[in-house]
Amino acid sequence: MFDNIRVVLSHTTHPGNIGAAARAMKTMGLRHLYLISPRHFPDPQATAMAAGADDILGSAVVCASIDEALQGVAFTVAMTARLRDISIQVRTPREAMPQVVQEAASHPVALLFGTEMSGLTNEEMGRAQLGVNIPANPEFSSLNIAAAVQVTAYELVVAAQSYQPQVRDIVPVPHERMEGLYAHLEKTLFEIGFFTTQNPARLMQRLRRLFARARPEEEEINILRGILTVATEYNARLKKRYSEEHPDVR
Amino acid sequence: MFDNIRVVLSHTTHPGNIGAAARAMKTMGLRHLYLISPRHFPDPQATAMAAGADDILGSAVVCASIDEALQGVAFTVAMTARLRDISIQVRTPREAMPQVVQEAASHPVALLFGTEMSGLTNEEMGRAQLGVNIPANPEFSSLNIAAAVQVTAYELVVAAQSYQPQVRDIVPVPHERMEGLYAHLEKTLFEIGFFTTQNPARLMQRLRRLFARARPEEEEINILRGILTVATEYNARLKKRYSEEHPDVR
Repeated sequence: MFDNIRVVLSHTTHPGNIGAAARAMKTMGLRHLYLISPRHFPDPQATAMAAGADDILGSAVVCASIDEALQGVAFTVAMTARLRDISIQVRTPREAMPQVVQEAASHPVALLFGTEMSGLTNEEMGRAQLGVNIPANPEFSSLNIAAAVQVTAYELVVAAQSYQPQVRDIVPVPHERMEGLYAHLEKTLFEIGFFTTQNPARLMQRLRRLFARARPEEEEINILRGILTVATEYNARLKKRYSEEHPDVR
Repeated sequence: MFDNIRVVLSHTTHPGNIGAAARAMKTMGLRHLYLISPRHFPDPQATAMAAGADDILGSAVVCASIDEALQGVAFTVAMTARLRDISIQVRTPREAMPQVVQEAASHPVALLFGTEMSGLTNEEMGRAQLGVNIPANPEFSSLNIAAAVQVTAYELVVAAQSYQPQVRDIVPVPHERMEGLYAHLEKTLFEIGFFTTQNPARLMQRLRRLFARARPEEEEINILRGILTVATEYNARLKKRYSEEHPDVR
């Protein structure tokens, strides 16, 4: 099931951290590394810090965007230094990793780590279905990326040891289908004039949170997008009729 | 209670690992670092990798021997890459850290980490009451030292969160009292001729394992050492009488 798990590092600054993260992954049996726009990669420092995990660096996938890195992924967990987050639920590694193991038994899962300085952006967090916060010293909570990968992967191993297969009642859709829904939703809300009274970015964040909890299936996505299409058509008809009835108003 | 916990790194080769370990400690609220004969310390690489945890490096205690580093410690946990060990019981971090928290509530505790290449020696392992093995990929189990410190300290934090004070039924003695017992025991076994039929090193390892499980109290140490003293005296009397009766035998 670990074969379904990818570690995604976003905009990593120091190549040594990429190597150390690869080593941490390999010690826990994780193999798939995705790098979103790393500053330096490949790099001799990455290889040195990998200390024998250079096969993981060799097969690492370098991506230009987060959506590329999450292609095909049906469950994304985002590491956060915050205990609460507006866009997603936040859990500890101990609470979250059993679910990751469970999800990875049936579909691709991503563990998403942000940059050394500032972590993940709100936009990146919004791609995840769950946030994970490693409990830390409130006065010095800055775990090194490789250290965060190590703790998370360790919890995965422990969770996998007590894994019991469960019958899944829903089949979640891959990342790109969710993004398609959000894009459609945002476009529709613009078109129907909803955003004249609401902050679009903040509202979309809340909607992402809602749907991340709901984990829609393919059929439900189709229904939701059908509703959106109809809503726009109706609105387009209204506009058309209005402009016919009021040819003087532009 | 974390104030009673010291991290002891033995013969660390790379100063960067010392710094990274200090950072890992600080993220989890651990402060006391002991270094047994580090190859390079202090060192700019250690400071660079500490990334803000240089206060821990600044107050680190450099020791010439393990016994110096364990002075005053009543419970020592040794990290090991082995799942079984002749000299001590081995547990996972999850199993062991609740006990560490429990012990640290009343007396000094040490977490002992070996060198990058070869871990802890048998002699060092024999100083511990418990071994801890981090579950890892059997084909690539070499966690970086700082990564091992991070996982262990993380488990400590999680264990501390669900800590319930218990009434202790025994008060274990500090490290140096245990070493005093072992030295006395070994000397006595030599004197009474026990080692003519036994491998001393291996036997002492087994005895250490036994007493590590027993966790003797002060009074019990006194009784044991009293027995040893009497045994030696008795043996000396036997020898004396034997040589009187058999002046021809040397």
